[in-house]
Amino acid sequence: MRIGELSRRTGVPVPTIKYYVREGLLPPGELSSPNQAHYGETHERRLRLIRALLDVGGLKVAAIAEILGAVDDPERPLHKVLGAAADRLGPAGESADDAEAAAADTAVGELIARRGWQTHESDAAAADLSRALAAMGRVGHGAFTELLDEYADAAELVARADLDYVSRRVAVEDLVESVVIGTVLGEAVFNAMRRLAHVDASARVYGVDGAGREGEAG
Amino acid sequence: MRIGELSRRTGVPVPTIKYYVREGLLPPGELSSPNQAHYGETHERRLRLIRALLDVGGLKVAAIAEILGAVDDPERPLHKVLGAAADRLGPAGESADDAEAAAADTAVGELIARRGWQTHESDAAAADLSRALAAMGRVGHGAFTELLDEYADAAELVARADLDYVSRRVAVEDLVESVVIGTVLGEAVFNAMRRLAHVDASARVYGVDGAGREGEAG
Repeated sequence: MRIGELSRRTGVPVPTIKYYVREGLLPPGELSSPNQAHYGETHERRLRLIRALLDVGGLKVAAIAEILGAVDDPERPLHKVLGAAADRLGPAGESADDAEAAAADTAVGELIARRGWQTHESDAAAADLSRALAAMGRVGHGAFTELLDEYADAAELVARADLDYVSRRVAVEDLVESVVIGTVLGEAVFNAMRRLAHVDASARVYGVDGAGREGEAG
Repeated sequence: MRIGELSRRTGVPVPTIKYYVREGLLPPGELSSPNQAHYGETHERRLRLIRALLDVGGLKVAAIAEILGAVDDPERPLHKVLGAAADRLGPAGESADDAEAAAADTAVGELIARRGWQTHESDAAAADLSRALAAMGRVGHGAFTELLDEYADAAELVARADLDYVSRRVAVEDLVESVVIGTVLGEAVFNAMRRLAHVDASARVYGVDGAGREGEAG
């Protein structure tokens, strides 16, 4: 199909498609004449993936380019692709160098050892976890580390469900792309669900009539 | 303390502190002379909270102002504060109007009914969930809705752990602030952990030696 048809099918404007090609997110079309490129189903599919990662995953173009580069590299084993995706998903920012950061690093190291997690390809995710715990510590919630194993139980539950889905539903040639989709969009799914579960749990424990704040010192 | 001391203690530059006061995130200091304001521990604590929400939660200043407004309103019951926080945490964006969006809306409505979730104060979280599922559908993963109950189990596990922590560890006067912290920073904690668990699960199932991509059609 021509670029106009690709645009019509995906809802992505033609200049945006050209921009994605320039940035290396989308392979160029096949030239059928010097001024005419032809696009196929792989382009359409890749374009939908880019939009999903941008719109729902909230990723930046550079992060998507890096993740897709890993997806497209057949030499790279799946867990390294996931490591590359994990590296681009966390909040950018450097770690502080204070007591809370040191305590958080220790807690994360102990957690990974205790769970026996094989996570050497995703140092960035471990660093993000440590940064979030250090931030908790700085606002007076260092004791939040008590919850790490319950969080880890839930994370393993979700990760197992994701892998089961992949093995059940995904053709081998779509494996890597699907795992990236699940990593990014599944995060949006879980976050929204956790917020729903919070509101529900709070309504149950503290009541929906405002009684929960009656005892507040103010 | 004076603003310079507040800056030194929190690592937040003086002009940034003044900006937060102008934007209504931080209450103004008490004037001790026409040109001198005095800041106390509540300011220091609020400033640390703002930085945590900004740096780790990745929230925008306007979203933080809205959440803190809800925290500071003693008339507002806890589950409504959480609803307000939930409303500001999701990816901004409008929903599409296609078959995938309709299917996702149906799946979310059924899930909430099936779980018996009291979530009427957090329509935005339900909308975010629906948007993420619709995006999955558009990239060929409509069947992902099969996982919703496993995700919901995990979300309830985390929400229960959070509420237990709050009831065990948090003084009544800090309740609302703590729940907001847990909602925002806990999300960063869980996301990082899910990515670690993914890499681990994938290394176990598909191997760390790249064997997982051997069968790929390419």
